[in-house]
Amino acid sequence: MKLNGEQLAQFERDGYLFFPSLFTPGEIKTLTDEVPRLFAQRRPENVREKAGDVVRTNFAAHMYSLPFAKLARHPRMVEPVTQLFGEDVYMHQFKINGKAAFDGDVWQWHQDYGTWTNDDQMPEARAMNVAIFLDEVNEFNGPLMFIPGSHKLGVLDAAHDTSTTSYPLWVINHETIEKLVAHGGIVAPKGAPGSMILFHGCLVHSSTSNLSPWNRTAVYLSLCAVSNHIRRFKRPGYIAHRDFTPIACLPDDCLLKHYDAPLPWKDGTPQDELQGNREAA
Amino acid sequence: MKLNGEQLAQFERDGYLFFPSLFTPGEIKTLTDEVPRLFAQRRPENVREKAGDVVRTNFAAHMYSLPFAKLARHPRMVEPVTQLFGEDVYMHQFKINGKAAFDGDVWQWHQDYGTWTNDDQMPEARAMNVAIFLDEVNEFNGPLMFIPGSHKLGVLDAAHDTSTTSYPLWVINHETIEKLVAHGGIVAPKGAPGSMILFHGCLVHSSTSNLSPWNRTAVYLSLCAVSNHIRRFKRPGYIAHRDFTPIACLPDDCLLKHYDAPLPWKDGTPQDELQGNREAA
Repeated sequence: MKLNGEQLAQFERDGYLFFPSLFTPGEIKTLTDEVPRLFAQRRPENVREKAGDVVRTNFAAHMYSLPFAKLARHPRMVEPVTQLFGEDVYMHQFKINGKAAFDGDVWQWHQDYGTWTNDDQMPEARAMNVAIFLDEVNEFNGPLMFIPGSHKLGVLDAAHDTSTTSYPLWVINHETIEKLVAHGGIVAPKGAPGSMILFHGCLVHSSTSNLSPWNRTAVYLSLCAVSNHIRRFKRPGYIAHRDFTPIACLPDDCLLKHYDAPLPWKDGTPQDELQGNREAA
Repeated sequence: MKLNGEQLAQFERDGYLFFPSLFTPGEIKTLTDEVPRLFAQRRPENVREKAGDVVRTNFAAHMYSLPFAKLARHPRMVEPVTQLFGEDVYMHQFKINGKAAFDGDVWQWHQDYGTWTNDDQMPEARAMNVAIFLDEVNEFNGPLMFIPGSHKLGVLDAAHDTSTTSYPLWVINHETIEKLVAHGGIVAPKGAPGSMILFHGCLVHSSTSNLSPWNRTAVYLSLCAVSNHIRRFKRPGYIAHRDFTPIACLPDDCLLKHYDAPLPWKDGTPQDELQGNREAA
């Protein structure tokens, strides 16, 4: 899968690209079938919503679940990112966000690279966010909202919000958001399960709460250019990965056929991946 | 303003009617110009959001603000309701909901008649909700969401939620919402300032949080058929009014020209309107 000139120009201008129904229903089913089992596990990789016991985010499923290990090596996802960066990429972060029906809480306006640079000392914004819809995304179940063009301003001032939701986040102030939206507006790509969004690490985004009876589960990956690997291990390894090996893609049919992939955390997360504050080797 | 046969059938089927841009920008400006002054007041009619000092709801502005006193008597709003009920109506509740940019919190799924019957002992669901947009309503600033047809089931089981937001509400359980949405779907009318929605007291509705930089201020009125007046004064009088005098309409140009209207709470709310738990006379 190669991006064409128009797509490259669009990414440069808007900071994101949307690929409706990139994965088939059959491919997505192999993933959604696995989610309840993952969310039911009592492991540190499951972060729950502030209210109740519902999973907000599951981290690093590609380290202990075969369907997600295969997704992490899927050429339809990895190749466009490699093309954009002009070099190999490794998996910086892998998460499944529940945004559960009725209970899914807001994510305030933020840039992911804010966290990557502040916490992880990632040198440049050469890591790409990838969102893959496991459920249909519509106007009622808390779609991702982007401010097009906001990636061009680099890292914006942000405050560390540890109280609004159950997950701490570097959040951008209201005055800045007003200015950015006055310039670029807001968009919220919607579509069928299997749709994919690529978006720049500096693109300002948020999502509102999900009051609908429809789950809005999505996989969010961050693929980092290998030369741009993080320099500090402040966050646990299951949140910000420390293995900078380039991703080797599986064949295009990997979600539908049997392929092996390593599952090193199948029997539990190694002790030193649970902790932060370790200097990079 | 008379509803035609098609509109009457639509209301019967869906439980709501939407009138885009029913009031002109000039008419709406007389109201929006007044809102900051109202929200700035320290009076019990201003209920603030759980987080911060932002006004979530202002009650009973028609009792102390001339522009809103005129709106409360506007024929474009009152006449269709009188037509639907076939009798005079009085003002049961009058509120301005801020749903402020960035801070506006959710309203969970509920029916208004649930509160009117449980708290106020209103005999039947013969009171109409009216929403008038003072700001543009779009997909990003927390529009009202309705489940069409859900008004036909009468009063649904609900639990009194006093913790999710700063305002207590009789909230409908998830299983019921799933069933209702499977049947009727969800709609969220959007439009310019001055648009109006009429919706049945039993229509199930909610609204999500407003993360956008756009305020979504709206006036919500409940007009009750006079013969159906409430029988209990459990809630304060500024929330559930105790004066059942039929509304006498002003002329259609009342928002643009000078007309007098009584402002009995101009110098403060009478002591006995601040308290609940009084038996109806």
